[in-house]
Amino acid sequence: MILRPEPLTADAFSPFGDVLQTRGRTAGRINEGHTLSFPDLADIEVGREGRVRLSIYRSEPVQLPFTLQGMERHPLGSQAFYPLHDRPFPVIVALPRARLRPQDLRVFMTDGRQGVNLKPGTWHHYQLSLEKVSEYLVIDRAGPGDNLEERRLEGTAVLQI
Amino acid sequence: MILRPEPLTADAFSPFGDVLQTRGRTAGRINEGHTLSFPDLADIEVGREGRVRLSIYRSEPVQLPFTLQGMERHPLGSQAFYPLHDRPFPVIVALPRARLRPQDLRVFMTDGRQGVNLKPGTWHHYQLSLEKVSEYLVIDRAGPGDNLEERRLEGTAVLQI
Repeated sequence: MILRPEPLTADAFSPFGDVLQTRGRTAGRINEGHTLSFPDLADIEVGREGRVRLSIYRSEPVQLPFTLQGMERHPLGSQAFYPLHDRPFPVIVALPRARLRPQDLRVFMTDGRQGVNLKPGTWHHYQLSLEKVSEYLVIDRAGPGDNLEERRLEGTAVLQI
Repeated sequence: MILRPEPLTADAFSPFGDVLQTRGRTAGRINEGHTLSFPDLADIEVGREGRVRLSIYRSEPVQLPFTLQGMERHPLGSQAFYPLHDRPFPVIVALPRARLRPQDLRVFMTDGRQGVNLKPGTWHHYQLSLEKVSEYLVIDRAGPGDNLEERRLEGTAVLQI
């Protein structure tokens, strides 16, 4: 099955998590008027025993068409990705209770200024980058417990744009 | 007094907080080899009653020389700034117990790929941007209690580069 992306919007993505963006968000003016603040864009969840971890990921680009092998999820915490570049990238997700057949997946394409914050338990493909080596700021959970679950796809899915 | 920046390094900045950067940090390879992960770059602190808040700040540039009026600090949580651009920006700080005379301030200039995470209680000037409108990802604390303290400088300090 060929998977083709749809545009990333807050409404369409809401079952899976937050879209990190300024568009459509209310801003406040701070710092003696020098700064617009778009506050509280994500529900960062790490649970009682967890703590928030901030990391940088540097990803090699993949070639399209790209064949997906499996998905992963983090049951104990949210995971946010914000691009340190201005190129669109695909976000491949499925609902926590979904089977992982190709038709259960959704693919969203960012607009180059959007990040995402995945809810705990949202199935997702590991972050895919296009064209160039790409960096992301990643905000997720560290702490006790097993926070990584991986599962193979039930079928063949190929990402194409 | 004229304040001139020094380069931002992890060692020099350690009394004030973390430098968010990949340089000098140990990376792990994840995602079937596609990604280098530089994990856990900051001590994010929000206390027991706080939660982590993720925001975007969009700042107007200031003109140099810039006369500083005062400083602020957040006693209940850390505050991280990561640039969503690649231009250096100044970070003006003082130790929690310092008086706020011009000679008590330190000014660091980022290299364009660095962010900072201020420890709880570190005095700092509100984020200054140079040349262009500049966006930052900001990770700090939300929750009960008064997390903002502001104080005027004891004297005249002018930022010049």
